[in-house]
Amino acid sequence: MTENIVEFSGGAIGQWRVTKMDTVRGQGLEQASHIKITQLTEDYSPDKSAAWNLYGCTSNFRYTEQVEKEQLKAIEPELGRSFATHGALIPIRKSAAWWVLAQDKRRVIFESQSNHIKTDLRYLPAIARKLYHSRDSGCHYDFLTWFEFAPTESNSFEELVTTLRKSPEWDFVEEEVDIRVVRIQ
Amino acid sequence: MTENIVEFSGGAIGQWRVTKMDTVRGQGLEQASHIKITQLTEDYSPDKSAAWNLYGCTSNFRYTEQVEKEQLKAIEPELGRSFATHGALIPIRKSAAWWVLAQDKRRVIFESQSNHIKTDLRYLPAIARKLYHSRDSGCHYDFLTWFEFAPTESNSFEELVTTLRKSPEWDFVEEEVDIRVVRIQ
Repeated sequence: MTENIVEFSGGAIGQWRVTKMDTVRGQGLEQASHIKITQLTEDYSPDKSAAWNLYGCTSNFRYTEQVEKEQLKAIEPELGRSFATHGALIPIRKSAAWWVLAQDKRRVIFESQSNHIKTDLRYLPAIARKLYHSRDSGCHYDFLTWFEFAPTESNSFEELVTTLRKSPEWDFVEEEVDIRVVRIQ
Repeated sequence: MTENIVEFSGGAIGQWRVTKMDTVRGQGLEQASHIKITQLTEDYSPDKSAAWNLYGCTSNFRYTEQVEKEQLKAIEPELGRSFATHGALIPIRKSAAWWVLAQDKRRVIFESQSNHIKTDLRYLPAIARKLYHSRDSGCHYDFLTWFEFAPTESNSFEELVTTLRKSPEWDFVEEEVDIRVVRIQ
């Protein structure tokens, strides 16, 4: 039952070295020098040496409609491209005011007002992106988004996160940590 | 982080006595004489004496739109009404074909074609209902739905489950267990 669950451990070891760790909103996470990413297996036990462990699972789309899904699928790259040595982990937690909204109201804010999917599409395939859901598995954060891109795309990545942070959807983000990493060769 | 999570344990003890346990589809669950419902706390440890433990969390609406939400809120009762001595726990698992559908396609099947919310509304407030999400927390089932009603509503409850099982949405249900219970006074 653990095949979709990934652990992000912040600590002294990992495949990714942390270059910058900013608390954008909220209480933040303890500084860590590395991030270790582990796909959970049945015999897994938590990495107790880490400063923090965050868990998320891949899940179904919550807002994406059929036409958008096809646009995404057409250009979405896999993770792990050799040139994509820069990355980011961005845990966010949305407010109670967001979660109490009905599905249609959330969709309007998410896409009609905030162009969340359109913004993601604009930076694909250069910036690979994977969303992990953590709200329904007891994590403090609702979502953990993982990004991978070439060093030459660093400015584009800044643009992407800046655009999203200015959107009406972000009025409902009460906690956000922005962790930038580079892959250890 | 456990405040929204509930454990349903099937075993020899619990507040609810099992009167009938049917595997509607799929592999089913081991027979149990009682169901124990536990709200998880930080110092919780799983009930290892139980035949099975299922975990679910309350979460945001996935399909309910604003107008429907208001209709539901207006007549939805709380659980625990003294006259509502009959209950049911219905774990279901939907197929991969369901989960791969985009949000708009799932909504069409769920409500436009299957009238899932309209059907629930028709039996409110007589049949109280609480949905627990389990798909994103590593459970075999996607949803655990808990119902409570007066003994005089037993026929209405049969109607409700029969109506849903005949709906196009149920073409995507690959596992379902129907566990009927009565409250121990």
